Amino acid sequence: MDFDALFRTQLDELKDEGNYRVFADLERRCGAFPKVRNHGPGPDKVTVWCSNDYLGMGQHPDVVAAMVDTARKCGTGAGGTRNISGTAHHHVALESELADLHGKEDALLFSSGYVSNWAALGTLGARIPNAVILSDALNHASMIEGIRHSRADKVIWKHNDPEDLDRKLAACGDRPKIVAFESVYSMDGDIAPIAEICDVAEKHGAMTYIDEVHAVGMYGPRGGGVAEREGLMHRIDLIEGTLGKAFGTFGGYITGSASLCDFIRSFSSGFIFTTALPPAVAAAATASIRHLKSSGVERDMQKRQVAQLRAKLDAHGIPHLPNPSHIIPVMIKDPVKCRMISDILMEDWGIYVQPINYPTVPKGTERLRFTPGPLHSDADIDHLVAALNTLWGQCALARRVA
Amino acid sequence: MDFDALFRTQLDELKDEGNYRVFADLERRCGAFPKVRNHGPGPDKVTVWCSNDYLGMGQHPDVVAAMVDTARKCGTGAGGTRNISGTAHHHVALESELADLHGKEDALLFSSGYVSNWAALGTLGARIPNAVILSDALNHASMIEGIRHSRADKVIWKHNDPEDLDRKLAACGDRPKIVAFESVYSMDGDIAPIAEICDVAEKHGAMTYIDEVHAVGMYGPRGGGVAEREGLMHRIDLIEGTLGKAFGTFGGYITGSASLCDFIRSFSSGFIFTTALPPAVAAAATASIRHLKSSGVERDMQKRQVAQLRAKLDAHGIPHLPNPSHIIPVMIKDPVKCRMISDILMEDWGIYVQPINYPTVPKGTERLRFTPGPLHSDADIDHLVAALNTLWGQCALARRVA
Repeated sequence: MDFDALFRTQLDELKDEGNYRVFADLERRCGAFPKVRNHGPGPDKVTVWCSNDYLGMGQHPDVVAAMVDTARKCGTGAGGTRNISGTAHHHVALESELADLHGKEDALLFSSGYVSNWAALGTLGARIPNAVILSDALNHASMIEGIRHSRADKVIWKHNDPEDLDRKLAACGDRPKIVAFESVYSMDGDIAPIAEICDVAEKHGAMTYIDEVHAVGMYGPRGGGVAEREGLMHRIDLIEGTLGKAFGTFGGYITGSASLCDFIRSFSSGFIFTTALPPAVAAAATASIRHLKSSGVERDMQKRQVAQLRAKLDAHGIPHLPNPSHIIPVMIKDPVKCRMISDILMEDWGIYVQPINYPTVPKGTERLRFTPGPLHSDADIDHLVAALNTLWGQCALARRVA
Repeated sequence: MDFDALFRTQLDELKDEGNYRVFADLERRCGAFPKVRNHGPGPDKVTVWCSNDYLGMGQHPDVVAAMVDTARKCGTGAGGTRNISGTAHHHVALESELADLHGKEDALLFSSGYVSNWAALGTLGARIPNAVILSDALNHASMIEGIRHSRADKVIWKHNDPEDLDRKLAACGDRPKIVAFESVYSMDGDIAPIAEICDVAEKHGAMTYIDEVHAVGMYGPRGGGVAEREGLMHRIDLIEGTLGKAFGTFGGYITGSASLCDFIRSFSSGFIFTTALPPAVAAAATASIRHLKSSGVERDMQKRQVAQLRAKLDAHGIPHLPNPSHIIPVMIKDPVKCRMISDILMEDWGIYVQPINYPTVPKGTERLRFTPGPLHSDADIDHLVAALNTLWGQCALARRVA
């Protein structure tokens, strides 16, 4: 059996489809973000337009200081699973901070947002007898894998459609029901009708599970997410979030009732059998959450730059997907063209926006996904729009010539 | 449906069995490890005897400096998945260091060792048509979950038994076969007969997959693991390891051929859809690996202290599981007693060793698991043995009285 030949064949198929991924090799510099050093093709210095460090908190002085101080005082690793010598006082403090952020009794940390969804849904679905999980049609891969892992029955409801959810909940009868959905869907940037979903879930006595990874830190007066902004956190049983996007660090979490968190803590393989986050990472995350609880400057400035980029794209007739979030998708609908435009932007313009291809989005919906932040200057926005305008002009010209 | 009541009922069952877990709330101090500050019951300062930071690298000045310098220069987070703006030059450097450590063409980083096993086995089993995975009976939860996730056929062979593996491989005929096993099994501390397993796997044309998480940094002249020590790395197709144990940081990895790593990189959900490790963590791991490639002092001193603890336990007639590794299990075989002894050691003696209960070990095999390191002093060892000797004396007395 020639395994390598088999691997190469499947990789060649990816390449033929235009879905082979090449990672940009970058080096961030504190204080310079979103400008970064580029170790790959293109200019030395490029501007990142597709980061999930949405507010630039990864270079915030308080956050960096917390990581640096804690690494100096406590070292670089936790040294064990949470159960076997790996719980640091910094994890305990962070979990308490997260519970407070979401107005919940308790919180539980995981290695990543992916693992938190996989482990929490996996455990709930597996250990609640006869449970059925009602999953929004566009839920993230980590939720899908968690549900699959649980081996519970799964019912998919139409994306962001509470009426369809209502019908499907009704069909589940008396079984224990878990409604799993996201607030901000990261690739289209649309936002769930959370209140209506809660209405329907409550009507049927279902547990509500929301993924707010693209919203925590960003929405709500204290950065508690869209559910906070809409005064709905108390109606959600489990809020899942990440420390790796707007909070600028690393790791995932859930919050909920004390017994819910204790249940996942006690039964989840993906929580039990893995090394705890470095205390220095936990301390940095705590500092970031604390800052964004009281500071709205970053959120306000981000909203301004998002609105500005949208307006300028509109002024130049560059089409982008309308949505009420901070994510601006510009649809290309072809993996090869998407890659090509991205390469031109990087090499000729010093603009880095990764092509978003399958499996991150369905085939035929390839896109560029811009995430303007408070640290993008007005000049950065103008430069980006000028670049896109030039490229769109060339494409139009090419179409006329062809 | 009262979900909380259901959670509490299942948690009460755990408590009744003695398997409910209480985490020690600790605070490491650089330079003082394995002495740590204790925020829970017991004295303020305790000695950790169950850490997986086996060599104390989590407080090594070079490793701490790498994390501190990189956090200062580059910030606290990667800001995205590896594909979407999250690849830092530090990840590229670390993967190159890991490939070199194991004499392989390439390496691939993951959020954790758990995720690396889950993702790699999950992807291999799912994407190699008609594959069958031959799994050692005592493989880690993360491997079991990965195999389950892959939905490939699984055949369990007797723990560390190449003859049984041979028979079971023969029964698989022409199908693509993957032999998955560990080098050091973390709970019993026994070591796989790697050469014999390779002989059998090669005879049947099977791919070999080894988990060396409890061995990397610790065995072999450069810390490449047991396979390095025995000159067998080139006979293993995929070596999986962790940065969270002897390397003192966080994260997991695989190494292998360029096409194998590219295959997992390109098709694994658990790799694609998750935020990259913080560059500062990657830099710390690189510093740790580099140090342990050239320095044998830590490994030598650890071997000395492991031998010393064993000898002193023997001298006092305290039974421990014999094995050829650095892990010293003292069997208690009862979850409640195990917890009680652990509590007494913590509270009366300032010795922290977590009780190891189900599901980490099978019920009835509960144990204390000691991992002496180069930073445990001779006095620490004497103190531990005195404590155990006193407790064993009391137990013997109790038995006589009863």
